[in-house]
Amino acid sequence: MTREVTVIPERSGTAFRLPQGAALTVIDPKGEQVADLLAYNAHDIDEVISSGRTLDYAETIRLTTGHTLYSNRSRPMLRIVADSVGCHDFLLTPCSIDTFLHFYPDLPPHRGCFGNLAEALAPYGVGPDQIPVAFNCFMNVPVDGDSGKLKVLPPTSKAGDSIVLRAEMDLVIGLTACSAPDSNGGSFKPIHYRIDPA
Amino acid sequence: MTREVTVIPERSGTAFRLPQGAALTVIDPKGEQVADLLAYNAHDIDEVISSGRTLDYAETIRLTTGHTLYSNRSRPMLRIVADSVGCHDFLLTPCSIDTFLHFYPDLPPHRGCFGNLAEALAPYGVGPDQIPVAFNCFMNVPVDGDSGKLKVLPPTSKAGDSIVLRAEMDLVIGLTACSAPDSNGGSFKPIHYRIDPA
Repeated sequence: MTREVTVIPERSGTAFRLPQGAALTVIDPKGEQVADLLAYNAHDIDEVISSGRTLDYAETIRLTTGHTLYSNRSRPMLRIVADSVGCHDFLLTPCSIDTFLHFYPDLPPHRGCFGNLAEALAPYGVGPDQIPVAFNCFMNVPVDGDSGKLKVLPPTSKAGDSIVLRAEMDLVIGLTACSAPDSNGGSFKPIHYRIDPA
Repeated sequence: MTREVTVIPERSGTAFRLPQGAALTVIDPKGEQVADLLAYNAHDIDEVISSGRTLDYAETIRLTTGHTLYSNRSRPMLRIVADSVGCHDFLLTPCSIDTFLHFYPDLPPHRGCFGNLAEALAPYGVGPDQIPVAFNCFMNVPVDGDSGKLKVLPPTSKAGDSIVLRAEMDLVIGLTACSAPDSNGGSFKPIHYRIDPA
């Protein structure tokens, strides 16, 4: 049975519940498009996805199939069970109006993934200050091992590529089609997602 | 005039106010000892130091003299004005009892920097869930640019090395002498700090 795909229009975001055991498939339908992903414990939104815990336990910044995304309480939130790309970012916070003013002073500013996530997550009781570093699906941020310098390059994802994450607890998920030019190869495209129950 | 130095005993932590314009000098008195540093807006502790904002604006994971540490609201919190080491970490969360159970199952577990910071910051209204990725002074976490793998190696700091950070707003600071064996070259030493007013 093929489950329904939901479309996140370009430069927008959404939020939804993902029950324990369900699988979330995030799809890049056109290629080179980032999707910022946040996760909160559905029963206690003070428990939130943590880049610092996850990178510490994984001992790598390149997370892919088999890796677990941990909460700030060191508990598994999501497990990556499939990944056709293998290049995602877990270093940077969602783009925001401040990001636009900093990096794109000549473009009309946009509220970015941060603004989109804040609006989408508000009905779940999540305030803007509770938005941490996101797991940025398909985002390509290489780090130079010698200098430490990082770059934001176009994603390596092709049309139809996807990553599948299984919920290890009942979650509230925030998910975007990213709004920042450099992160998405200079153009803005939708993101698709699908939920398969446990 | 030489200002007083305060000692943070091994495997412990503290918290204190740092007014805008004041300079905090964090000193490694014996060498190879990490100090986890957190910062909160003293007037609104929901504004907190953000690795993701900072790394994004700095475009490097190697922060040193001249770099600014930003809050989750994209505002400057601390500016690094001197640094005799040039090797610090801003990827990993403070070590905790869960870290000890994960990495050191054969050692007696310790509440770690996380527990020490939680206790020290509680009088300022900061709860344990509000402890994000810390700026880990002197922590040596090289990243392999090709594989993405990270390692926790002994600090490169020698006895008497220091980093100086100037407060860009009124802050509450949390600061530790780190408790994790691998981060500190296998032994636990104190950290010293000094505050010079604006």
